[in-house]
Amino acid sequence: MSSENIFQQRIRLKDGGEKIKSPDEAAKLIEKGMTVGCSGFTPSGYPKVVPQALARRCESEGPIPITLWTGASVGPEMDGALAAAGCIHKRFPYQTDETLRKKINSGEILFADLHLSHNAQNLRYGFHGDVDVAVVEAIAITENGGIIPTTSVGNSPVFVELAKKVIVEINTTQPSDLEGFHDIYLPQNPPNRQPIPITAPGDRIGTPYIPCAPEKIAAIVHSEVKDSQRPLAELDETSRRMARHLLDFLDLEVKSGRLPPSLLPLQSGVGNIANAVLKGLAEWPSDGLTVYTEVIQDAVFELLDKGKIAFASSTALTPSPDGAAKYYPRLKEFAERVVLRPQELSNNPEVIRRLGLIAMNTAVEVDIYGHVNSTMVRGGQILNGIGGSGDFARNAWLTIFLCPAIAGGGKISKVVPFCSHIDHTEHDTDVIVTEHGVADLRSLSPRERANVIIEKCADPQYKEMLNDYKKRAELGKGHEPHILGEALSWHVRLEKGGSMKP
Amino acid sequence: MSSENIFQQRIRLKDGGEKIKSPDEAAKLIEKGMTVGCSGFTPSGYPKVVPQALARRCESEGPIPITLWTGASVGPEMDGALAAAGCIHKRFPYQTDETLRKKINSGEILFADLHLSHNAQNLRYGFHGDVDVAVVEAIAITENGGIIPTTSVGNSPVFVELAKKVIVEINTTQPSDLEGFHDIYLPQNPPNRQPIPITAPGDRIGTPYIPCAPEKIAAIVHSEVKDSQRPLAELDETSRRMARHLLDFLDLEVKSGRLPPSLLPLQSGVGNIANAVLKGLAEWPSDGLTVYTEVIQDAVFELLDKGKIAFASSTALTPSPDGAAKYYPRLKEFAERVVLRPQELSNNPEVIRRLGLIAMNTAVEVDIYGHVNSTMVRGGQILNGIGGSGDFARNAWLTIFLCPAIAGGGKISKVVPFCSHIDHTEHDTDVIVTEHGVADLRSLSPRERANVIIEKCADPQYKEMLNDYKKRAELGKGHEPHILGEALSWHVRLEKGGSMKP
Repeated sequence: MSSENIFQQRIRLKDGGEKIKSPDEAAKLIEKGMTVGCSGFTPSGYPKVVPQALARRCESEGPIPITLWTGASVGPEMDGALAAAGCIHKRFPYQTDETLRKKINSGEILFADLHLSHNAQNLRYGFHGDVDVAVVEAIAITENGGIIPTTSVGNSPVFVELAKKVIVEINTTQPSDLEGFHDIYLPQNPPNRQPIPITAPGDRIGTPYIPCAPEKIAAIVHSEVKDSQRPLAELDETSRRMARHLLDFLDLEVKSGRLPPSLLPLQSGVGNIANAVLKGLAEWPSDGLTVYTEVIQDAVFELLDKGKIAFASSTALTPSPDGAAKYYPRLKEFAERVVLRPQELSNNPEVIRRLGLIAMNTAVEVDIYGHVNSTMVRGGQILNGIGGSGDFARNAWLTIFLCPAIAGGGKISKVVPFCSHIDHTEHDTDVIVTEHGVADLRSLSPRERANVIIEKCADPQYKEMLNDYKKRAELGKGHEPHILGEALSWHVRLEKGGSMKP
Repeated sequence: MSSENIFQQRIRLKDGGEKIKSPDEAAKLIEKGMTVGCSGFTPSGYPKVVPQALARRCESEGPIPITLWTGASVGPEMDGALAAAGCIHKRFPYQTDETLRKKINSGEILFADLHLSHNAQNLRYGFHGDVDVAVVEAIAITENGGIIPTTSVGNSPVFVELAKKVIVEINTTQPSDLEGFHDIYLPQNPPNRQPIPITAPGDRIGTPYIPCAPEKIAAIVHSEVKDSQRPLAELDETSRRMARHLLDFLDLEVKSGRLPPSLLPLQSGVGNIANAVLKGLAEWPSDGLTVYTEVIQDAVFELLDKGKIAFASSTALTPSPDGAAKYYPRLKEFAERVVLRPQELSNNPEVIRRLGLIAMNTAVEVDIYGHVNSTMVRGGQILNGIGGSGDFARNAWLTIFLCPAIAGGGKISKVVPFCSHIDHTEHDTDVIVTEHGVADLRSLSPRERANVIIEKCADPQYKEMLNDYKKRAELGKGHEPHILGEALSWHVRLEKGGSMKP
């Protein structure tokens, strides 16, 4: 069957064929000043052909600045193309694109870095104004207008709920076997909100499609552009050592009786360190592990395949190109053991706290008292954003931050006297892991924390400097002693001389 | 009836009279190195005679250092007396006592400043070791050993659940009409935790007493020492102006359709500013307001009395001496409209987010990008602690921080380039209020936030300096521009020269 025939077949809505438009026609529904909510969470499940058509339109017509919402980061066909074309005035709630990042840091594009679990409710509360158009990548449209998402759910349900017009990109390269993976549930606004009835990662509480009034669907577009998956780096020795420390630590938690042998549901950020930790679980002595997270990378597929992981809940599938090639053709085998939820639920404080997650996220830097920078370098230059790390860190059973002890060949210490930007505070950090060891901060006062973080986590070449700062700070007393005139001096030195070393 | 007869009568447990001990005898159950969990949240409902007996024992026997847990702050009979006597090695999770604060800041006493909603679960998870003894102030002990708390619930349920031995101080000065106000519910640990079935502030989901196996009750002690309530200051013009700005802002939210006329459940911190805001609600056009908070101060009693507030949920009653004299004799009139819950529930993220609270808390200082310092002055000198502010700020429908624009007769600006300590990040702050105005930060990028905060909230004598910093920082680019070598210079100047002004 031709791709065009498959496309037609996936429009199950009666007379839906009348809504078929070209990407260029659909892109015309988007006007200057509009707020547009697009599907996508990591480079998965984002619309591709309509954003590219919009970028082309900008090239001929001049900039069409819009406020652009997504679930999280998306692929370059969207953030890269639209940022380059001058099509983004303001961007929410997360990004990882190089072109976009440059324009955010230069002040050309406004960006607000938001907790991912807050987006849907705050949009529904009216805190961000109206949503004019939703653009959602889909596998199919059901008989009643329901939109079946592709490789991510993200914020798509709330965009569809609130938007005046909906554009659906049916992507015939996305595996149709994903139908049934999604579980869409939309909480009500206060004062009518009810408990979210999830008590285990595998609970299904909603519909397998995003409900949508058929008359809101303004365009149906055919896409054959694949997700722009990112390859994973080879595991390096630093990541491997961090993973080993973390797994040894979890093993001790099991031996102490605080954790069951099959642990509690695991959450893990995106990237190579997270992947290394999860890969390490292949050797975990117990089966029946579960995952409640926002992204499923290759390692989770591997562990599901091995039977090590019993169930995984997420809002996105984020395999590498190799992972996608290996596992997407076999999706049916995972259908009973994977669910994709809106990020309002994958990252929901209520559910995270109830299930008791083990949250593992990567830090940009940590300070000696346990504050964590997840977003910025050189004070105010954003890398990506806080993403879901705050949702998980605040509410997990155990909150773990991982980072290498040094960067830049040793010129940068990731353990500093005072973080140059703070995204997670001392009140939220339970455990810090570097390649040198594990600092278990639970129940410790700030002065005790500083001792443990410096001893266990700092790189040997920075330990003496950190201890020296700590000791001199303590001369001035205080619950959390600091020398304010010196607290950020390591970053200033780095900025001026290229190294934190004096 | 004599106080002694009332005491005897309140021990309804069969053969409970055999457990009666003097405060000195009971205090002997506490040994060096133990972890002791005491009732108390604000100077309400904390044990008085056993801690004082313990302090006396220290004077004769020498220091008996213990790890001391409470719900939050307590009165001077406990924190002051025990800190002075060298009886505290480590203190959790909050405090407001001058003697204790000094010893924390000097490093003599270790303190960990924790989110109040995290305490009970983390104790239950085993993160803080065993609880040896619980000391709980009570109105009465029921036939089955149930402990009926007095003016606060705090962390008492988990202390009683986990402690090996329980000491009950029956305080015959506390109003027996409080029986029935309490609603005790203990969530299970993951993976067995269920949804908390509160969907409105008035829902009762537990028992009116703290369940306790009678054999764990090791001593019953008679107390006649009253709660050491703190008087409220006269409302000053600054607080009144902040309150007026905030209420005008809420009125606009109602007019915009985002809030119903009876608002959403209100949460308000402790102290004079909070009291001013709540007092201002006396003129609110709608009835049927509700409160879901951690403390009920005089203003809430007044509004309940007027019929303006329909229901108030809290973990503590914190009236001033005048408020207690006025309202405690009339408690029966409020019995159907007030509930006292464990702080694990009054501050619970799940419930706070579901109900959609309007959270109003006081800041020590705010920075131009919306980060908030709630705990420290001069970098590391602690005032009180984060208390419940993080629980509410992260999960509320709307998160508002209030602070006067200046302090120290203008030598200190409460709006600074960079907070010297951060407890709440830019990701959590929706609105900042000073006596000069309201900065509505929702949906704004950091650069936009800085403009609004400086314009609306900063004191006129600091506006130019703040704008100058902001402009020069922007020359260096960045999503959230900073000059790291200068970011904390205002605090350094204050430390060295006694003023933030150059």
